[in-house]
Amino acid sequence: MAQKPSIPKGTRDFTPQEVSKRQYIINTIKGQFELFGFQPIETPSFENSETLMGKYGDEGDRLIFKILNSGEYLSKVDNGIYQKKDEVKLTPLISEKALRYDLTVPFARYVVQHQNEIDFPFKRYQIQPVWRADRPQKGRFREFYQCDADVVGSDSLWQEVEFIQLYDAVFTQLKLKGVTLKVNNRKILSGIAEVIGAKDKLIDFTVALDKLDKIGEEKVKEEMLSKGISALGIQMLEPLFNLSGDFGSQIRKLKEILGKSSEGLKGIEELDFINNAISKLGLQTATLKLDVTLARGLNYYTGAIFEVAAPEGVDMGSIGGGGRYDDLTGIFGLNNVSGVGISFGLDRIYLVLETLNLFPETVTGATKVLFINFGETEAMHCLELIQALRAENIKTELYPDAGKMKKQMTFANKRNIPYVVMVGEAEIQSRIYTLKNMASGEQQQLSRLEIIELLK
Amino acid sequence: MAQKPSIPKGTRDFTPQEVSKRQYIINTIKGQFELFGFQPIETPSFENSETLMGKYGDEGDRLIFKILNSGEYLSKVDNGIYQKKDEVKLTPLISEKALRYDLTVPFARYVVQHQNEIDFPFKRYQIQPVWRADRPQKGRFREFYQCDADVVGSDSLWQEVEFIQLYDAVFTQLKLKGVTLKVNNRKILSGIAEVIGAKDKLIDFTVALDKLDKIGEEKVKEEMLSKGISALGIQMLEPLFNLSGDFGSQIRKLKEILGKSSEGLKGIEELDFINNAISKLGLQTATLKLDVTLARGLNYYTGAIFEVAAPEGVDMGSIGGGGRYDDLTGIFGLNNVSGVGISFGLDRIYLVLETLNLFPETVTGATKVLFINFGETEAMHCLELIQALRAENIKTELYPDAGKMKKQMTFANKRNIPYVVMVGEAEIQSRIYTLKNMASGEQQQLSRLEIIELLK
Repeated sequence: MAQKPSIPKGTRDFTPQEVSKRQYIINTIKGQFELFGFQPIETPSFENSETLMGKYGDEGDRLIFKILNSGEYLSKVDNGIYQKKDEVKLTPLISEKALRYDLTVPFARYVVQHQNEIDFPFKRYQIQPVWRADRPQKGRFREFYQCDADVVGSDSLWQEVEFIQLYDAVFTQLKLKGVTLKVNNRKILSGIAEVIGAKDKLIDFTVALDKLDKIGEEKVKEEMLSKGISALGIQMLEPLFNLSGDFGSQIRKLKEILGKSSEGLKGIEELDFINNAISKLGLQTATLKLDVTLARGLNYYTGAIFEVAAPEGVDMGSIGGGGRYDDLTGIFGLNNVSGVGISFGLDRIYLVLETLNLFPETVTGATKVLFINFGETEAMHCLELIQALRAENIKTELYPDAGKMKKQMTFANKRNIPYVVMVGEAEIQSRIYTLKNMASGEQQQLSRLEIIELLK
Repeated sequence: MAQKPSIPKGTRDFTPQEVSKRQYIINTIKGQFELFGFQPIETPSFENSETLMGKYGDEGDRLIFKILNSGEYLSKVDNGIYQKKDEVKLTPLISEKALRYDLTVPFARYVVQHQNEIDFPFKRYQIQPVWRADRPQKGRFREFYQCDADVVGSDSLWQEVEFIQLYDAVFTQLKLKGVTLKVNNRKILSGIAEVIGAKDKLIDFTVALDKLDKIGEEKVKEEMLSKGISALGIQMLEPLFNLSGDFGSQIRKLKEILGKSSEGLKGIEELDFINNAISKLGLQTATLKLDVTLARGLNYYTGAIFEVAAPEGVDMGSIGGGGRYDDLTGIFGLNNVSGVGISFGLDRIYLVLETLNLFPETVTGATKVLFINFGETEAMHCLELIQALRAENIKTELYPDAGKMKKQMTFANKRNIPYVVMVGEAEIQSRIYTLKNMASGEQQQLSRLEIIELLK
């Protein structure tokens, strides 16, 4: 009967320490989301398959976890189809639900489904796990949290400005200095594609460009060539790979290159607006940077594109990203609702804070005082004291078993409980109790009120 | 392409108001868990199937959501087996993972897997969703949160005493008065089964008895008869269905009836200990009650059994439950680890608080002030003010689009935002801004600092 227990690959157990640290990050993000006027929603862990399938490309479809129908799920499957033993045909017949792959598509579904209850523009945030059947690797899991904030129902560029402020506010509060907020605009990418004669290959072009950091310039060029973008066109990209100067001067250079493309010019205008506003408002600890190679894998961005890079010297890739998408709810039949949003990468932020030792020491809300258990009468007296301490919001435990004092002290030490109280026969008589500071070893004789005063 | 969006039956979207109310309950429970010394853990949403299957009985096995393997999951399935088109045979071959069905079995798995890192006795809490392919009905969902606290590694009855205090503390803090904490002991049930000559039918007996509230005395008796319990034995149960008097006198009566059963006597001794301690400590708003018919469907309880009933007059069934289980980790190869735990029924507690109108008005952390957007220059000035307000922790929004004043005011009203600030050309010059109280309609001319003072 006994089984050696384990968990599925790519998933994790979180210990009390880890949960507390994750909660610290989540609560910081949540607090800033609410300060900026975002409201929380939650959607189901699984959606109807048709809600998710076809929204993330073929690779996405493959990586979506499908849930097997319940009961006699084969009885409705046509014998002819069943005999083919073909996953592509069988899967939709035996699985009608799937675990959510991100929070954006469920959000789009939510907006359309609840459009009559929502006051637009709708600023929502959502912090929930998502699941992907990806090959697990360092920092990539099959279950992980996304922390998203989006606005739908306004195409105002002030939203982009506020999202940059929001990123800055969160990382500043987390004491993570030196974060780079990379920004680009899909219209600039379209303009470039237009200029190099690859307008009809925009997706191939952006997907290849997005890999620049990972695979390097040469491989990106090879990929573009293999996708049918001309060598001449690729040559024209040269100056873009090597844009230098500050944000403003990069924008001016881009303007020259893209002068012929009206869409490209629109993108430049938008970036200029954002950069000017942020220059006036200032950022606390982050730096805004134009990155014209930034495309992100997702095909639905139509305007601004964001990505957050961890401080230099921390090998971590992006710790956040987002952008504007003009037609997301269109897939569910609601057109002309523009959206823009950002996401925080909880797991990577966690690793960065851990690497840089930035978690506050007080982050784990551990027990403050343990009452030693000397036996039934003493424990009963302890529980009366404990009741009074808890009423004052002091985190308190009774060691449940009357046993060796040393064992109980070791327990307090291992658990990092800073104080223990000892209540023996004499203490019950005198109502003066022994409180021990576990760090200093110092002992004091205190009344109930004095203990409360000291620990509060 | 357009799809009419919907979500799977038995699942729910939560609106901002609902999320905030749920968070209020969760944070109350969490706060008390930590006050009592429980530490948070989290486990993956899905476990390996062998971790879950066989742990909840045949019905449980059927209600567990199975996840389809990824990729070419049919290629490894033996053709002979495949041709049988039999779910029972096929499922384990095409599905290796399953969504967790409760938090107790994953916790047992966690304890065994991490036994060398844990300091026992281990007091953990866990607040996460679980999934069951149950037929959805009022108050029963396919995805719902469980809020569990358990202690493993001690058989001390002080834990039972503390759990009763914990229930009382949570419901008192939620201002839910009149809750009944029903308690029983599995050993008493065993004793009764022994006395009525049904010792070998203990499970059938307890399962039937557990249904008393739902199906009534006669149907329970019928079920027992159908399971082979003798009519004479069932007749002996008569006085138990009608135990009267207070906790103490009920215990004395039970003692007489069960005098011959040493296990039954042990159960009575345990209940007596718990009742005496709680009598001395007192409860704030809940009432402790012996309910000898209480068995709960789960077969693994071995000692105390808890169930919480909503206040009289609220039609809701149990809003919490739990008990002691001596051998839970045994299924994963770790023997002699006694555990005891309780659970809070978040959804039902929510419905009870809603019914009795007990949610505090301040529960939704909504935006405090909206800045009206009169155009680009004005909005830029607004964002500078907004930055200052947010730095003082005031939840602030800029209406993103410059548009009709009336539309923006309507938005503020619908969103229940209590204040708006108007910044026009004149205000930018004078740096004195118009703040409007949306409830009273009153307008004031204030400086930035005065606005902050008023809203802080």
